[in-house]
Amino acid sequence: MYKITPLEGGLAAVPGFYCDGINVGMRTDPANSGSSDIDGDVAFIRSDTPCDVAAIFTTNRFQAAPIRHFKRYPEGFQTDFVLINAKNANAMTGEAGIEDIDHIFDALRSKRTVLNPIMSSTGVIGYRLPTDKIISAFDRFDYDARDSDAAARAILTTDTFKKEVACEVTLEDGSCFRLGAIAKGAGMIDPAMATMLAFVVTDADIPASEMEPALREGVDASFNRISVDGDTSTNDTAMLLANRVSGVYHRTAFREALEQVLFALAMMILRDGEGATKVVAFHVKGAATDAEARQAAVALSNSLLVKTALFGEDPNWGRIASTIGASGVTCDEERLVIHYDDLLIYSAAQRTLDSTREQEAHAVMQHDQFLITCDLGMGTGESIAYGCDLSYDYVKINAEYRT
Amino acid sequence: MYKITPLEGGLAAVPGFYCDGINVGMRTDPANSGSSDIDGDVAFIRSDTPCDVAAIFTTNRFQAAPIRHFKRYPEGFQTDFVLINAKNANAMTGEAGIEDIDHIFDALRSKRTVLNPIMSSTGVIGYRLPTDKIISAFDRFDYDARDSDAAARAILTTDTFKKEVACEVTLEDGSCFRLGAIAKGAGMIDPAMATMLAFVVTDADIPASEMEPALREGVDASFNRISVDGDTSTNDTAMLLANRVSGVYHRTAFREALEQVLFALAMMILRDGEGATKVVAFHVKGAATDAEARQAAVALSNSLLVKTALFGEDPNWGRIASTIGASGVTCDEERLVIHYDDLLIYSAAQRTLDSTREQEAHAVMQHDQFLITCDLGMGTGESIAYGCDLSYDYVKINAEYRT
Repeated sequence: MYKITPLEGGLAAVPGFYCDGINVGMRTDPANSGSSDIDGDVAFIRSDTPCDVAAIFTTNRFQAAPIRHFKRYPEGFQTDFVLINAKNANAMTGEAGIEDIDHIFDALRSKRTVLNPIMSSTGVIGYRLPTDKIISAFDRFDYDARDSDAAARAILTTDTFKKEVACEVTLEDGSCFRLGAIAKGAGMIDPAMATMLAFVVTDADIPASEMEPALREGVDASFNRISVDGDTSTNDTAMLLANRVSGVYHRTAFREALEQVLFALAMMILRDGEGATKVVAFHVKGAATDAEARQAAVALSNSLLVKTALFGEDPNWGRIASTIGASGVTCDEERLVIHYDDLLIYSAAQRTLDSTREQEAHAVMQHDQFLITCDLGMGTGESIAYGCDLSYDYVKINAEYRT
Repeated sequence: MYKITPLEGGLAAVPGFYCDGINVGMRTDPANSGSSDIDGDVAFIRSDTPCDVAAIFTTNRFQAAPIRHFKRYPEGFQTDFVLINAKNANAMTGEAGIEDIDHIFDALRSKRTVLNPIMSSTGVIGYRLPTDKIISAFDRFDYDARDSDAAARAILTTDTFKKEVACEVTLEDGSCFRLGAIAKGAGMIDPAMATMLAFVVTDADIPASEMEPALREGVDASFNRISVDGDTSTNDTAMLLANRVSGVYHRTAFREALEQVLFALAMMILRDGEGATKVVAFHVKGAATDAEARQAAVALSNSLLVKTALFGEDPNWGRIASTIGASGVTCDEERLVIHYDDLLIYSAAQRTLDSTREQEAHAVMQHDQFLITCDLGMGTGESIAYGCDLSYDYVKINAEYRT
């Protein structure tokens, strides 16, 4: 048995890790306008001791320069330094984009010793990094800071609030290890994990070989279940760094804690979805297979007609049904049953909403989070996906800001 | 050789066909609110003589009652009467929805002789048809009317203008045949042909066996290339009726004319996309295969981030590139070349837009239609898809109206 307890402090909750975030002037660059209430634009995460690292990157065929830079390190490499910048994705910048990273890290090495430093970037596509500005950070960072708040804020783009979480896992013998994390992401979130950066650090004594499987399982149960608009960016990254200094590990407990951390970050990203006013969980059960359940749940979370009906708080179950039918899964209108929270919305025996039920349904939809359950009645397949509504502000943010 | 000449008159341009549209009060039903400047809600198309018929229906697994009713007729059946209603899709209404259609046609048969009558419906999902209101039309229709305008208006839902087109095909010997058509559709249009009804009538002497292949080819080159929001409805129908009374036919000429008619209707539907302010053609060439070109073109026409950038007239080619990369096709940022009309926007040799080119790109985007060409540089595959922008009004229309 084990216990998972939330902690304050984000990354700083984990011994041996240091972090900071500062402003080097990228947010004032006219080509990179954006949120104005976030002041940092460059952050670091470093460890006193070499860390094992696992990362899951975007499935976009155009991978950004920092991802390609990461992949040039030999398999199983260790690192002790991660540099993150906002406002410029360093994507579609070709070989020059990778050379810029080398140039930045040459400058860092002239200041201090680092082991296989990693870069991660988010922001506008197609502009070279302002390397001089980024390099200027190396004289200004407080390398002994443990300022997770500053780091979490410096990596944001169209986000409206920082994403930070931490927890402690206590085993039966009283020994414990910790996980701390920060993330950014608001628009462009998709079941394929889009324009999202997440960094998890841990002092658990996890074997290097178990890191990527654990991270993949966690991402699959969190970021890959949320959708804001169905696009997939060039820069998505989920990264796990382990310094192993606690000397403590428990496989099941670690996986559960990691999944909790990633799920908490995913829900923050979804709630911060550009212009979103509510978060809805789409639970599809009774599908022919789990894969079909997932296909239908993801289709629901991505449908523009469903999203706008959610924003309008219109209990128009026809759009739910039509989206399931269009998703290509095995289904039958005689067997389908739809609930909003506990309220029966559609079944073959009760198809049309009477005005009482319509008002009750409308009342459920006014909540800022609720559950839509669709039982297909075809088998035992089950899945859940999370989505948000589509508001005027989504259009405004994406028409007006270059992100 | 042959000549295709546009005609006025829509359905009425074709000899032997009659049509009308009237209001039976469905548009004032509170459950069916919608556009207020369209006054009809029920229309018919009939022929003096039996017609061969071909139809292509939605791929949605929940097919509406009228589609299931149609499919109960034996293969190769002939018809002389099509009844169309707006404001109620008769979808997700179960066996009762089909019985309602039988009941309506029983009433029609008590008034006049009809051969295998067909029904087609569009509107809100999940409500039983108001059969009494619809039956009341049978005493009020002018069965000898050739009022294509009234019919075209009566079938609209969130459309803001009627869709009607006709043409005459003249062969070398001076003989000729005609095609006339009406359609409805504004929102929910997808490459999978969504919430769209189109009815084409012809007096060409086309063999029954050639009708469906011709219709399928035409739909593939028109409705299946337009996208408003990526959803697929329960009711989509493209139907071709041939009374063969001209005694004239020419296979190639017929196919070209049918494709022109369907393409013209598709462009009207796209231009009437809910809240759309501009139409953009996405031409993907240099793909590894035609299928990959189509996959990328469709992804571009469906991407919310591309659509909002079009609305904002922001020459943010990074979203175009990112969407291509996310679409799963073979691509390479060193080989990709993007043009907006004739203006070079991205190539590996010229990645970042300077301010002059940015202004020129912005000027192109201010047009109400333009071409985005993406050469992937990987092969000879080519395809084109058409999309519109996503505006505040899209959200407004879909949040506020039950469609």
